Amino acid sequence: RTNMSADGQNLVQRIFDRAPFIQSLKIELLAFGAGWCEARVCVVPSFEQQHGLVHAGVLMTLADHTCGGAAATMVRPGQDVITVSNSFSFLRPASGPVLYCRAQVLRMGQRLAFVEGEVASEQGEARVISAKATSTLAIVPLERNSSERA
Amino acid sequence: RTNMSADGQNLVQRIFDRAPFIQSLKIELLAFGAGWCEARVCVVPSFEQQHGLVHAGVLMTLADHTCGGAAATMVRPGQDVITVSNSFSFLRPASGPVLYCRAQVLRMGQRLAFVEGEVASEQGEARVISAKATSTLAIVPLERNSSERA
Amino acid sequence: RTNMSADGQNLVQRIFDRAPFIQSLKIELLAFGAGWCEARVCVVPSFEQQHGLVHAGVLMTLADHTCGGAAATMVRPGQDVITVSNSFSFLRPASGPVLYCRAQVLRMGQRLAFVEGEVASEQGEARVISAKATSTLAIVPLERNSSERA
Amino acid sequence: RTNMSADGQNLVQRIFDRAPFIQSLKIELLAFGAGWCEARVCVVPSFEQQHGLVHAGVLMTLADHTCGGAAATMVRPGQDVITVSNSFSFLRPASGPVLYCRAQVLRMGQRLAFVEGEVASEQGEARVISAKATSTLAIVPLERNSSERA
Repeated sequence: RTNMSADGQNLVQRIFDRAPFIQSLKIELLAFGAGWCEARVCVVPSFEQQHGLVHAGVLMTLADHTCGGAAATMVRPGQDVITVSNSFSFLRPASGPVLYCRAQVLRMGQRLAFVEGEVASEQGEARVISAKATSTLAIVPLERNSSERA
Repeated sequence: RTNMSADGQNLVQRIFDRAPFIQSLKIELLAFGAGWCEARVCVVPSFEQQHGLVHAGVLMTLADHTCGGAAATMVRPGQDVITVSNSFSFLRPASGPVLYCRAQVLRMGQRLAFVEGEVASEQGEARVISAKATSTLAIVPLERNSSERA
Repeated sequence: RTNMSADGQNLVQRIFDRAPFIQSLKIELLAFGAGWCEARVCVVPSFEQQHGLVHAGVLMTLADHTCGGAAATMVRPGQDVITVSNSFSFLRPASGPVLYCRAQVLRMGQRLAFVEGEVASEQGEARVISAKATSTLAIVPLERNSSERA
Repeated sequence: RTNMSADGQNLVQRIFDRAPFIQSLKIELLAFGAGWCEARVCVVPSFEQQHGLVHAGVLMTLADHTCGGAAATMVRPGQDVITVSNSFSFLRPASGPVLYCRAQVLRMGQRLAFVEGEVASEQGEARVISAKATSTLAIVPLERNSSERA
């Protein structure tokens, strides 16, 4: 499957448009294609932890959701995705003004998707990577998703 | 170190009181002692993902911060803690009305702390575990924390 | 499912008896019940890394396999389990003479099992925890296992 | 630090030459440079799990050690590295005849190194990725390493 399905395209849009937590943080879907997804968020003061850096929770939310978007580009009709496990490495403190995430599917199986993502911030002209994520998602029927994860 | 220091006690309070992202989600510090910390949050509609469940980002934020609180109970004067890596397993969907997290230090070293946490929701009279977290934190000088994580 | 099935019982035994890598390290199945499994291994010089400690690879192998054993206790007829992701925290160096692992199922779903495990060594009369593992396993048909993981 | 130090070069060699577990599995150091390391191993029957595939423990040992090698290329005089946490995604079953691992440093800090690695096998003319690893290592004094990890 090297081309993105119409179902996948619709699913990615829905995942970003209809998720209130993502909307409340103003995380924006930037672009996506077969097996990848990019999103960004503007850093606001309410994102900070006790030292004025971006809270790890913001970085993890951005990465988790963008990894979900990348997996969603590759589903078949009637399928949905849901995160089953995540791991994160925090390489450097993040401090805005804008955070970007790019997620890439490593492997799309029949039942599971493996995705990795990087969160970077712009510092001058360079993008500096703050966090690296690895996400495992279950591929589930669209209707089943609301009641059962595992 | 089986007793909590006054420094640790103050640090835990500061970590929760002075973190704008935690305040914005209304995550509350419930209780803490030497090597453990408990927090909770009331689920509101803005926490949801696209299927009406609590977004993984909320669960991860709650777990990461409570794990930080648990590690903070055991620091020495002049020390602070900062997350370096995290992993999460999402056992079941979470749906409120209240989420609890209890975090427990597995090992407090000279340079690193290893902490695990569980996020549970009340369903009827039972607490059901939704997510399990493992967090590795660096023990850093209080003043160094703002510039350098690794 | 609070009782161990006969299928589960047979599967645990097979997982340990028929795995050449486990046999080559002389990892022994100690005991198991519904949702848990214990194994041990005697530390030999060939397990060491460059500083005379037990190599992380030995700890991870012991933990991964014992987590698989714990999940296997809860399968249904015709099912098998296979690891899809793992994470490990290395709390303290391990140095023998015997390493123990106890693994406990956190959640047995229809498609996935979440298991945690601890690796400990005896030091005098106390058992000291060296590593903590979290393992996610897919529940797959017995015959499918040999060709397809995801 | 974009150049590899002589200390780093010596340390990588030592890490592979003096680790009995690595020698016992016949894992070979292939090549390394500033921030990266490659190793390989020939698959033998004793590496198998119960279904004739390579045991996850072999993949994790190869990845952990090669990640350590990559971090070692960037140490300063008198420094050593030791794994503090690891996470793995098992994308596809691995079955030989030869497994390769390439590890790449994501971030070399003063106290911690973040490294990622991929394990691949040759299938026909293509290399297929079986496992993805993320490793966090502590940078420790050479002499301290034998007694204290955290």
